[in-house]
Amino acid sequence: MNEIDDILRGIRRKDPRAIGRAISIVEEGDQRAGEILQILDEETVQKATIMGITGSPGVGKSTLVDQLIAYYRRQGLRIGIVAIDPSSPISGGAFLGDRIRMMRHTIDRDVLIRSMATRGRLGGLCAAAGAAARIMAGSGCNPVIVETVGIGQAEVDVVSLADITVLVFAPGLGDDIQAMKAGLIEMADILVVNKADCPGADALVMEIESVIQGRNCPVCRTIAPETAGIEELAAVIRDMDQKKRQNGQFAQNRQKARESEVLDWAVEMMRIKLKNQLKSQSRQIKGDPRMIARKLIEEISR
Amino acid sequence: MNEIDDILRGIRRKDPRAIGRAISIVEEGDQRAGEILQILDEETVQKATIMGITGSPGVGKSTLVDQLIAYYRRQGLRIGIVAIDPSSPISGGAFLGDRIRMMRHTIDRDVLIRSMATRGRLGGLCAAAGAAARIMAGSGCNPVIVETVGIGQAEVDVVSLADITVLVFAPGLGDDIQAMKAGLIEMADILVVNKADCPGADALVMEIESVIQGRNCPVCRTIAPETAGIEELAAVIRDMDQKKRQNGQFAQNRQKARESEVLDWAVEMMRIKLKNQLKSQSRQIKGDPRMIARKLIEEISR
Repeated sequence: MNEIDDILRGIRRKDPRAIGRAISIVEEGDQRAGEILQILDEETVQKATIMGITGSPGVGKSTLVDQLIAYYRRQGLRIGIVAIDPSSPISGGAFLGDRIRMMRHTIDRDVLIRSMATRGRLGGLCAAAGAAARIMAGSGCNPVIVETVGIGQAEVDVVSLADITVLVFAPGLGDDIQAMKAGLIEMADILVVNKADCPGADALVMEIESVIQGRNCPVCRTIAPETAGIEELAAVIRDMDQKKRQNGQFAQNRQKARESEVLDWAVEMMRIKLKNQLKSQSRQIKGDPRMIARKLIEEISR
Repeated sequence: MNEIDDILRGIRRKDPRAIGRAISIVEEGDQRAGEILQILDEETVQKATIMGITGSPGVGKSTLVDQLIAYYRRQGLRIGIVAIDPSSPISGGAFLGDRIRMMRHTIDRDVLIRSMATRGRLGGLCAAAGAAARIMAGSGCNPVIVETVGIGQAEVDVVSLADITVLVFAPGLGDDIQAMKAGLIEMADILVVNKADCPGADALVMEIESVIQGRNCPVCRTIAPETAGIEELAAVIRDMDQKKRQNGQFAQNRQKARESEVLDWAVEMMRIKLKNQLKSQSRQIKGDPRMIARKLIEEISR
């Protein structure tokens, strides 16, 4: 009996170790990843909602996710969390940082938490996170939360794999941060002002509302260390999910997400090929890098 | 007489419009980019130091850069700034945000400021920023400062194109941010604790020193709205630059930077090809995304 059979049975039994192993196999680009992803129960995966939660550092995202987990657990739901960690491109390790706050859930068999490092690879991140979310969904997690820190390309990519995207703000973080978030606002389904009891919260809500200008995008207020606003937020998410499933947006999104996942893998595979080709010769790089890039492509196409 | 000749003469004359046009041509992936990049005076480009300045939002990076510009101008130096802006993947516009603080330099012909949006393209960012820095260097700017906001992959990429990397911290920004910076610490040449007059600055310096542990990485303190520490920082940068040029690290770095630039362009070209191929057929994507990715690669290789 091979390991993949073991793992698949483990996933069906909701064994956290088997699920973790499956995600590792996919993340590491193991050959057997395909077998795992093909055998997941498609109906169960479709039933789950993949929720992207993002926002700048300091907005209290982890605490908010923690409260959401607690809320969904009270509803008897099984939850998956894929936490994207910016990490050292050299050591390659995932930073757990304030994930520790989520620790109270780690002994709960129905809360799966997977930390995923961005490492040097951007290409594979979206793909690996998408696959991890599907494996969790396939093991009966619903919702699956994909949490990202920051505002880089990783956020944009990860947001594109989610069915519903929640963008979290907090008052008092300065213009620097506010400006950066503007780009993501257009992609978000739901906006949250966390730390809603802090000075500046009302002004921030007004500012956000002026940016979204009549777009049908709910703005929720939460105070995450307490449970204030969490139930309301969950209700807004649920309504949005239902609406998207009814009007076909959900299915369309999933198709698009799968497409970017495929593209991601393909680009990543090509990157490795190109890198090896570049390293295979000691060449002096002078002049137009694009001309050299074109040559490189010709060389690997031969 | 063609436009490229005009532009090249403009660059030699240090005409900001010609330099701006040259960068646009490179950034837009215009065919003529190669001509421009090939004709830059290699010696002048080698002489210039490309300085990467990065750090989380809120550390006061822009104010620090502003002070550095003022310092270098007092030395009679000509400065280039490439400011990488996270921007809307939908509208594609660059966010100027607190760049406005740099405005006092915009009427100075010897301060070139170019804002570059990350947009959806990650691939081309590093390449475009590298080319922009070289064009500025070719027009006699030294140093050229490449400033990035955030901690995503863009930072890692941009850092890799710099000769010297300065990572900026500030006290009082919370664990969230501190954890994220740890990954970049390993790549930085010089660490700066800005807002050194704020509570928590001493503790932050100690924390940073415990992370770098004996690694020979200077830690500077600055108070950017004033000029405190700016001269010292500039001196540390200058010493580091000299050392790197003497021990061969500088040349090695540049070679590596050019390699990643080439790789970047090549990957970007392939991404476009793969995307078009993916869109050329309406396919149902089910099962293993990597198998489909492999098929896609086969299809474009035919």
